[in-house]
Amino acid sequence: MRQAELTKPPGSLGRLEELAIWLAQWQRRTIPRLDRVNVIVFAGNHGVAARGVSAYPAAVTEQMVANYARGGAAINQLAKLAQAELTAVPLDLDRPTADFTVRPAMDSLEFLTAVDAGYRSVPTDCDLLAIGEMGIGNTTAAAALCAGLLGGGATRWVGRGTGVDDAGIERKRQAVEAALTRHREIINDPIGIAAALGGRELAAMMGAALAARDRQIPVLLDGFVCTAAVAPLTRLNPHALDHCRAAHISAESGHRALLAELGLSPLLDFDMRLGEASAAALAILLLRAALACHEGMATFAEASVSGRSKD
Amino acid sequence: MRQAELTKPPGSLGRLEELAIWLAQWQRRTIPRLDRVNVIVFAGNHGVAARGVSAYPAAVTEQMVANYARGGAAINQLAKLAQAELTAVPLDLDRPTADFTVRPAMDSLEFLTAVDAGYRSVPTDCDLLAIGEMGIGNTTAAAALCAGLLGGGATRWVGRGTGVDDAGIERKRQAVEAALTRHREIINDPIGIAAALGGRELAAMMGAALAARDRQIPVLLDGFVCTAAVAPLTRLNPHALDHCRAAHISAESGHRALLAELGLSPLLDFDMRLGEASAAALAILLLRAALACHEGMATFAEASVSGRSKD
Repeated sequence: MRQAELTKPPGSLGRLEELAIWLAQWQRRTIPRLDRVNVIVFAGNHGVAARGVSAYPAAVTEQMVANYARGGAAINQLAKLAQAELTAVPLDLDRPTADFTVRPAMDSLEFLTAVDAGYRSVPTDCDLLAIGEMGIGNTTAAAALCAGLLGGGATRWVGRGTGVDDAGIERKRQAVEAALTRHREIINDPIGIAAALGGRELAAMMGAALAARDRQIPVLLDGFVCTAAVAPLTRLNPHALDHCRAAHISAESGHRALLAELGLSPLLDFDMRLGEASAAALAILLLRAALACHEGMATFAEASVSGRSKD
Repeated sequence: MRQAELTKPPGSLGRLEELAIWLAQWQRRTIPRLDRVNVIVFAGNHGVAARGVSAYPAAVTEQMVANYARGGAAINQLAKLAQAELTAVPLDLDRPTADFTVRPAMDSLEFLTAVDAGYRSVPTDCDLLAIGEMGIGNTTAAAALCAGLLGGGATRWVGRGTGVDDAGIERKRQAVEAALTRHREIINDPIGIAAALGGRELAAMMGAALAARDRQIPVLLDGFVCTAAVAPLTRLNPHALDHCRAAHISAESGHRALLAELGLSPLLDFDMRLGEASAAALAILLLRAALACHEGMATFAEASVSGRSKD
């Protein structure tokens, strides 16, 4: 095992070692590759946004997708720094999902179409995939999805999102509680929950995670909404996210509980809450560092450095 | 203020925003620069190493300095990835400090010579400085220094270093307790403690931090030994480390208490315990990300993105 021969005390690079091994295992290469790294931002609009659950108008979803195309958003700068290819995938932005406080956000066909769009967005020759989202109102959808899937009610999962005030938080809580009441009959159906309480960009992230799994591509999950989007997969297969790492723990209050439920240990704790794959892109840098050490370091023998004394 | 106008909810980039502002303030530039970034690894040998406090023989200090010169160490890969210039500064490796369990590690002249070497090692035109160390036995010196400076005895500060076994830990504890007894008369003199219980590479890191402060250069501190080295400065001036950020919280057990004592909030928690500026170099990547967002993002007006709704 190459890691054990490198000129450092065993284990002293901590998570950099674990990450190098994880990349190598999923890519099935002794020395993993990060030649083609893709960042995909999925965007969707939400019927529930009409209930005043965001500090921003719904039009911002489309405006930000245009901002990604022009290169002006945080994710543009972070993807460029990480030498990653950025793609934005808008999903029927002119057709918001239904307001899930009164009916399912998506019917089965709409849901599967979004999952399929996500699945098809993943390049076959990708070495690492970072996924994230943009969607005004989508922390409310993520909170509803988590509450449906994992329990604990609205209080456990609702946070300030991009920055709502106390009245906005209360509207978010009410929307989530209304959704849980409205959809209580599907609480044991993880995919039903994803369709009824999620959103198109969440469904697409689930599809992208499935595609990556099929192709042995390691995945960096972004924040709360992204983690919520893939959480239903663990109800179908407890190992469904073994190819994923959580890029960070977000400032969004439900994220800590969600990561704990899924057994994911975040790479960064940077008090970020932007979404749009920003933390996932940041974490690419850490994976590049893991690979640089794994690939470039000398072994004890090569460097004529004495090994450990016999304890 | 540029940060407030960028196309993201205020504060949503978390510590990336704080770091950009910190760089800008210390560099006295609206848009900070990271054109010239220096990583300096200071190396020293320790008389206390003869007491069996490390899993590695003392010869490894010099062998690793040679490994840095050849490019085979972790820090070579990490500095290269971070586009930083790496310098190793060996300090009289053929003349270990005295065994501080029986006499002061350095006399005043030796101590000041090492501080001066560190001071002079910092380039005047540097935009960011990352400092770290290599020295077989130096977690024992750092533990003794912390115990002398901050109290709590050996138990609070002694850890496994690069990986000693239980018997080695016990030898470390005994060495620290012996040192505290031997040098109890200087416990109220922070500089006296740094000379008597530290080491040349620790003194040099103190000098480098002082030089950076004088020149308004922001500093990334590496791990436990590096943080211990600069800790005495806070007893002379509570703001002495305002130009410093802690790159990480190390797996070395005393580091958490030390960071808390100094009010430093680590950027990474990656279970690393290698030293040699490895975590500081990793953190350079995070500062580059902070700068990329601060410098490259569009403002709301430029991008025609709607601002917040009136709450």
